[in-house]
Amino acid sequence: MFMAILVVGSVAFDSIETPHGKVDHCLGGAATHFSLAASYFTPVRVIAVVGKDFTAENEAVLTRRGIDTQGLERADGLSFHWTGAYSGNMSEAKTLGTDLNVFETFEPKIPDVYKDTEYLFLANIDPALQARVRGQMPNVRMVCGDTMNYWIADHRANLEKVLRELDVLLINDGEVRMLADERNLVVAAKKVLAMGPKTLVVKHGEYGATAFFSDGSHPFRAPALPLAEVVDPTGAGDSFAGGFYGYIASQPKLTPAVLRKAMFYGGVMGSFAVERFGTERLQNVSREEIEQRFKLFQEISHLDHAEE
Amino acid sequence: MFMAILVVGSVAFDSIETPHGKVDHCLGGAATHFSLAASYFTPVRVIAVVGKDFTAENEAVLTRRGIDTQGLERADGLSFHWTGAYSGNMSEAKTLGTDLNVFETFEPKIPDVYKDTEYLFLANIDPALQARVRGQMPNVRMVCGDTMNYWIADHRANLEKVLRELDVLLINDGEVRMLADERNLVVAAKKVLAMGPKTLVVKHGEYGATAFFSDGSHPFRAPALPLAEVVDPTGAGDSFAGGFYGYIASQPKLTPAVLRKAMFYGGVMGSFAVERFGTERLQNVSREEIEQRFKLFQEISHLDHAEE
Repeated sequence: MFMAILVVGSVAFDSIETPHGKVDHCLGGAATHFSLAASYFTPVRVIAVVGKDFTAENEAVLTRRGIDTQGLERADGLSFHWTGAYSGNMSEAKTLGTDLNVFETFEPKIPDVYKDTEYLFLANIDPALQARVRGQMPNVRMVCGDTMNYWIADHRANLEKVLRELDVLLINDGEVRMLADERNLVVAAKKVLAMGPKTLVVKHGEYGATAFFSDGSHPFRAPALPLAEVVDPTGAGDSFAGGFYGYIASQPKLTPAVLRKAMFYGGVMGSFAVERFGTERLQNVSREEIEQRFKLFQEISHLDHAEE
Repeated sequence: MFMAILVVGSVAFDSIETPHGKVDHCLGGAATHFSLAASYFTPVRVIAVVGKDFTAENEAVLTRRGIDTQGLERADGLSFHWTGAYSGNMSEAKTLGTDLNVFETFEPKIPDVYKDTEYLFLANIDPALQARVRGQMPNVRMVCGDTMNYWIADHRANLEKVLRELDVLLINDGEVRMLADERNLVVAAKKVLAMGPKTLVVKHGEYGATAFFSDGSHPFRAPALPLAEVVDPTGAGDSFAGGFYGYIASQPKLTPAVLRKAMFYGGVMGSFAVERFGTERLQNVSREEIEQRFKLFQEISHLDHAEE
């Protein structure tokens, strides 16, 4: 019962500077991080656009993990390129440049062989595009999505249309507060859930994540792993989403117990992602390492896991 | 085996403004919040100084909870008075005034009947005073302490002396980073543990708390309860410390399992404290409510507590 996930979002090049070093034009983008993280749990199909600078080796990073790249469109021009830097406690990136390039005129097309996909992930892109992809997948079983401050501030009406159709929205603290125009996280979460999503997963960076539910059940908090070295936080949130949604799609049914484990697997994949620049770590983690780290997440958060 | 805790710290009046209202000269102070929270678990003895404005009714708030006030010294003048305000997401107080009054010349004296106390809590006061109290309790079984940015910045040498003798230091994220001069929390925690404490408990406010250990065992993360309404955050950290240490003192031995439960009880008492202004909620919580909330903390953080 390993159901496939279809993800639409950016496949890009990132130029990143952190206190641990600097990389130029490494493979990145939300759909890339998400796909790699999810690929350890379930088959993944990707829809994105890349430019002439996207090499066979770049594509092999995805296909080696079994990711279906039939939906990867080649356009004239250069791939989306993001330049950013982190300093201090590295909790927030400073964007130094965003070259949309081929992404500027991107119109997602869903290959026929993708149309039966049961799980859809709308990564952080223009909500108008998210809505058009959603519209082409009328029989999808579950829809999960992400967004960011830019769309919340300036594309509100389109975003609200997307929110109405989401099963799960995964965003960070600041985005929840901005979307709800409310400082208290619980009140803000309630307001966001009223906009449509059945579940809201709020990512707190180094403090973990909290899931809030529209059915009135108690929230659930998953820890993040305290890390002595964060090499590059880029893609941590997308990797969280990949682990979270990949685990859900690998299970026969979304029960409360499955959602809880998904929150932990999200944290696990996020913790791997930041260990190396770009996607390096997510290309080479083993399923055994994932299970070991899952146990570590339990050990650092569960009362009954103390060694006596 | 309910061993008593001796706490030295401030018993004071607080004037507080939050988005939920305003109170003038309500009973407060670190030792007050700590004592009330700990009193639900174990006997508490308090050492502090108050002024002529401290009424019999103020004292009764403590004695009604069985707190031993023989160490409460009456001095000429007014009690310590703090004025503060919270706004926004209320994560930090803005101090509007600190009138030390009788606290300025406070010299803690330990009544003979207190000298056999096995558990000592050094609340946030001048580390020179913390050291002198510690020195008068040579046979104490365990010492737990708090501090703040002011002492870290300007009383470093005295503070370092105190740290060398602590079993547990309880401070917040910003204080750990400041004390260690390091932004990464794990690296900062390691540096602080090297200064003396066997255990460092870092309070993350609405995101819970993390315990780090000098013996190299894995950290432990306890959640905070997501609250739709925080009426007054004053004393939340001291109430955490009271629940944490009160539970430890009530147990025959400090095992890893006891420490984990103590982290949860800390969060539980902190979550009650902020529900009302000042000490109002901590005066009137029941042991049954405490156990119910402890179960709620488990439910919001443990994989195996999902309702199916």
